[in-house]
Amino acid sequence: MRATLLYQAGDIRVEDVSDPKLQQPTDAVVRIVAGCVCGSDLWPYKSAPLTDTPRHMGHEFIGVVEETGTEVTTVRSGDLVVVPFTYSDGTCENCRRGLTTSCRHGGAWGVGGLDGGQGEAARIPWADGTLVKLPVGEDSELLPDLLTLSDVLCTGYHAARTAGVQAGDTVTVIGDGAVGLSAVISAKLLGAERIILMGRHTQRTDLGREFGATDVVAGRGQDGVEAVRELTGGFGTDQVLECVGLKDALLQAAGVVRDGGVISRVGAPQYPEVPFGFPEFLRNITLTGGVAPARAYIDELMPHILNGDIHPGRVFDRTVPLDQVAEGYRLMNDREALKVLVRP
Amino acid sequence: MRATLLYQAGDIRVEDVSDPKLQQPTDAVVRIVAGCVCGSDLWPYKSAPLTDTPRHMGHEFIGVVEETGTEVTTVRSGDLVVVPFTYSDGTCENCRRGLTTSCRHGGAWGVGGLDGGQGEAARIPWADGTLVKLPVGEDSELLPDLLTLSDVLCTGYHAARTAGVQAGDTVTVIGDGAVGLSAVISAKLLGAERIILMGRHTQRTDLGREFGATDVVAGRGQDGVEAVRELTGGFGTDQVLECVGLKDALLQAAGVVRDGGVISRVGAPQYPEVPFGFPEFLRNITLTGGVAPARAYIDELMPHILNGDIHPGRVFDRTVPLDQVAEGYRLMNDREALKVLVRP
Repeated sequence: MRATLLYQAGDIRVEDVSDPKLQQPTDAVVRIVAGCVCGSDLWPYKSAPLTDTPRHMGHEFIGVVEETGTEVTTVRSGDLVVVPFTYSDGTCENCRRGLTTSCRHGGAWGVGGLDGGQGEAARIPWADGTLVKLPVGEDSELLPDLLTLSDVLCTGYHAARTAGVQAGDTVTVIGDGAVGLSAVISAKLLGAERIILMGRHTQRTDLGREFGATDVVAGRGQDGVEAVRELTGGFGTDQVLECVGLKDALLQAAGVVRDGGVISRVGAPQYPEVPFGFPEFLRNITLTGGVAPARAYIDELMPHILNGDIHPGRVFDRTVPLDQVAEGYRLMNDREALKVLVRP
Repeated sequence: MRATLLYQAGDIRVEDVSDPKLQQPTDAVVRIVAGCVCGSDLWPYKSAPLTDTPRHMGHEFIGVVEETGTEVTTVRSGDLVVVPFTYSDGTCENCRRGLTTSCRHGGAWGVGGLDGGQGEAARIPWADGTLVKLPVGEDSELLPDLLTLSDVLCTGYHAARTAGVQAGDTVTVIGDGAVGLSAVISAKLLGAERIILMGRHTQRTDLGREFGATDVVAGRGQDGVEAVRELTGGFGTDQVLECVGLKDALLQAAGVVRDGGVISRVGAPQYPEVPFGFPEFLRNITLTGGVAPARAYIDELMPHILNGDIHPGRVFDRTVPLDQVAEGYRLMNDREALKVLVRP
């Protein structure tokens, strides 16, 4: 089959790799119908050193089950399924608590001999724990929306949930990428009354307004902080959803959060330390969030997509065929595209 | 009047200073009946540079109201009161939310011309917002217990509350100082089933056991982490109450907290940055806590003392008269005393 490989920064190739095969009785094999490029794929795309053992890319995908191992009971051949961005057994103590990203037998796509999600097919370990059947056909117009259940919508939702967003709250979302926009959708779903979106790209913040942002602040750093404080009577907001992953964004979050408030970070941290010393201690700031246990949120979020309440798939503003996936990376890296859908 | 002044590291003097007088109609003046030395007093005691304008020390005290301004309505002359370690107006938006430490008109004792709590008397700004009347006399045997409402008990309780300790939880407390022991009391009050106290001083951890600790781990660093993991089936605990304030204690907290768990820090951070980067993000660790809004907890905690449910005053293992307060500092700094009560 064909799959996307990263050889070094900027060097994305689509090559023949071995076809996935069942290895364990708990495995399934899926033929991939739709995948996409994640903001987090851009970190290695920008910086990976040259290697002989290229990285298998992609971790968000929808597919059709082709084969299942003898112990798989919840999906079967022909089912359309969404695949969360980590696999998990669904039965360990962490999975039972909803923290599927800390599954004792779980892991990430594209590493340790596993396929990535930007390819034609993938072996799925722990198919029962990992896969969620979709009640639509593979030609459904909802496919882009449902694809966001794999990662980006659940990641934005994780920010809002762990921050404790409730009806009537005022929330700041930092970042107008696909995760930030998903956080806007999520804050609105949870009843936030006011959602201040911090971002500089008008096309994206316009979509953010359609998703539910009530205010947009284009300023960054101290300017941005002052603008949010001005909007909130000097206090800042109860919750800040940090959807970037850079230290500057975290500092901005600390600047706009209200004393006693919560910062939830879901952008993969590109820093080893958090600048939370004595001043933030005096202000009683909480830092929460982390990698989203997408699997645990899918059952809760899918109905909102099927009902047409939310249209998170609008974050996909480009679609490329698999053999042009390198162009998809370039478009996202150069900010010409917000999020790129890949059709094998 | 006489008051405690710090001129430089190790140089504590009791000197004559001007008597406190009402300055605002919202002020009160109290004669101090009991004060004490706080672990946080030891940071300047260890490190303060020489100065001509010495620091007025002490921020935990009980006193008798001597005079009140014309607008004070909740206390009057002769009332015995406990004084939280910060003053607050009780009416601003932050106070109304219970975050009295972020009061818009509040502040700390001993700075900006205010008296400290290790002296004979003090002017109290915002007396209505700050003071809490005690329903006992100044000769009550409960005075040491009630004095802990000023700071140390409320600080331990803040750790347990912000960590979300609930009935049945397993909690780690890091630090066997007076705050750590108060955190043990608090975790037990909130229903924790298992309380693992990490500390090396047998006399203190023995008191911790009497307060409710079910396990004591004397090991530190990796040894300590492994011991707690062994006690918890490899998982670590849901909550960790970090009652030290050093970076090593925070690293230890990250080592013993369960994936998806909460670290609450109430030891004043002696570090500018928190080592919470990508690994802690992957584990979904929450960092909460901060300086305790003691005033907001006093009404809730006082009945437990009056009923005899808890005896937090047992953390005071020495009492010194005011003119020997320097010896009190030395005893605590040399770990010969756990916490020193000061009688003016």
